[in-house]
Amino acid sequence: MTGAGTDWTALDALPDPAVVVAPDGTVVHATPLLGRLLRRAANELAGRPVAEAVPLLEETGRDWWACRRPLDPDPGTRRLPETELTLVDHAGGHRPVLLTARRAAGEQAALVVVLRRGERRRRLDAARSELVSTVSHELRSPLTSVKGFVKTLLTKWEQFTDAQRRQMLATVDADADRVTRLLGELLDVSRIDAGRLPLRRSMIDLADVADQVIQRVD
Amino acid sequence: MTGAGTDWTALDALPDPAVVVAPDGTVVHATPLLGRLLRRAANELAGRPVAEAVPLLEETGRDWWACRRPLDPDPGTRRLPETELTLVDHAGGHRPVLLTARRAAGEQAALVVVLRRGERRRRLDAARSELVSTVSHELRSPLTSVKGFVKTLLTKWEQFTDAQRRQMLATVDADADRVTRLLGELLDVSRIDAGRLPLRRSMIDLADVADQVIQRVD
Repeated sequence: MTGAGTDWTALDALPDPAVVVAPDGTVVHATPLLGRLLRRAANELAGRPVAEAVPLLEETGRDWWACRRPLDPDPGTRRLPETELTLVDHAGGHRPVLLTARRAAGEQAALVVVLRRGERRRRLDAARSELVSTVSHELRSPLTSVKGFVKTLLTKWEQFTDAQRRQMLATVDADADRVTRLLGELLDVSRIDAGRLPLRRSMIDLADVADQVIQRVD
Repeated sequence: MTGAGTDWTALDALPDPAVVVAPDGTVVHATPLLGRLLRRAANELAGRPVAEAVPLLEETGRDWWACRRPLDPDPGTRRLPETELTLVDHAGGHRPVLLTARRAAGEQAALVVVLRRGERRRRLDAARSELVSTVSHELRSPLTSVKGFVKTLLTKWEQFTDAQRRQMLATVDADADRVTRLLGELLDVSRIDAGRLPLRRSMIDLADVADQVIQRVD
């Protein structure tokens, strides 16, 4: 179906950048979207060695073409699962891409590669890590306070009056409350993430809610 | 380039399932991989209304074709960004897919759609939410213990001897330590996730490490 003489221009209509590679490692066809991604005219890519024309790096910074050897025939796996790589454009810019590829049996083409832009997904991942990190840091400060007061009470017990001890404990209590509240919020976020936060719908008095918020700010 | 008479068979070599839709909403070409995903021969899909042949649901369960109206001409956006949808196969099975699509200007084709399987990414997302949820729950039990002892101490202060008070505080101290340790681990995970955990390489005595682990288990 896709042997010698295949007309690859149909790939130009794809929503994702794509490249067809010959068994000798040269580019047979590059779509205009790939050209745009590489900051190069797509027709200048044809005939060039793909490792140079479409430089892809693994997470470790190594050349994906050299390390993964996707052009080698492998009867076991025709499709390469989605892989996160870095594309180096012809201006030297690095951008995350999500690659899928499929080995072809034809003489004209050994591999068809499709790239998707990975920025959005990387941003989402980063935002999520950021959230966990922020919440964890926020949990730390009241927790440090709890630890500090308890340690001080334990080591210098005799030096405090009963009233002082109880006051320190009240502070510990308030800080522990804050840790608990933050932790509840973190759990809510993980539930929203997993689509497991059940929404309880109920009628509310908007004016009442507004009053409460104003009082809290005042 | 991709007008009337375009030969879409080149799409059959793609690593991802794809479908070409005519302006009237019928399937012009479906690739064998799409057929496999739908549990249907690809050639049985051609000529059928795409909303029936390739049923796609939004997260809310609504029909993506009807709600998003991707076949309507829209001079503003030719490419639809990657969207997480659910594909309903012809046996009634639901599977997550990541769709990209591109509007074509030709008379023969209005839209080219590429799907990627979304199971792996959904699994990764779920695993990550699960981790946050597990750690949060693990943080809860020592925290509840901290809260309980402090509350009891504060409300029943006079009923305890000094020795009892100090013993309760020691328990609070140990639990707060556990919360701090778990929190540190959560932070490490978020750093690994963000690729920001610096590895400090050093020589270790393997026999020594093994001894320590054995002692801990004994």
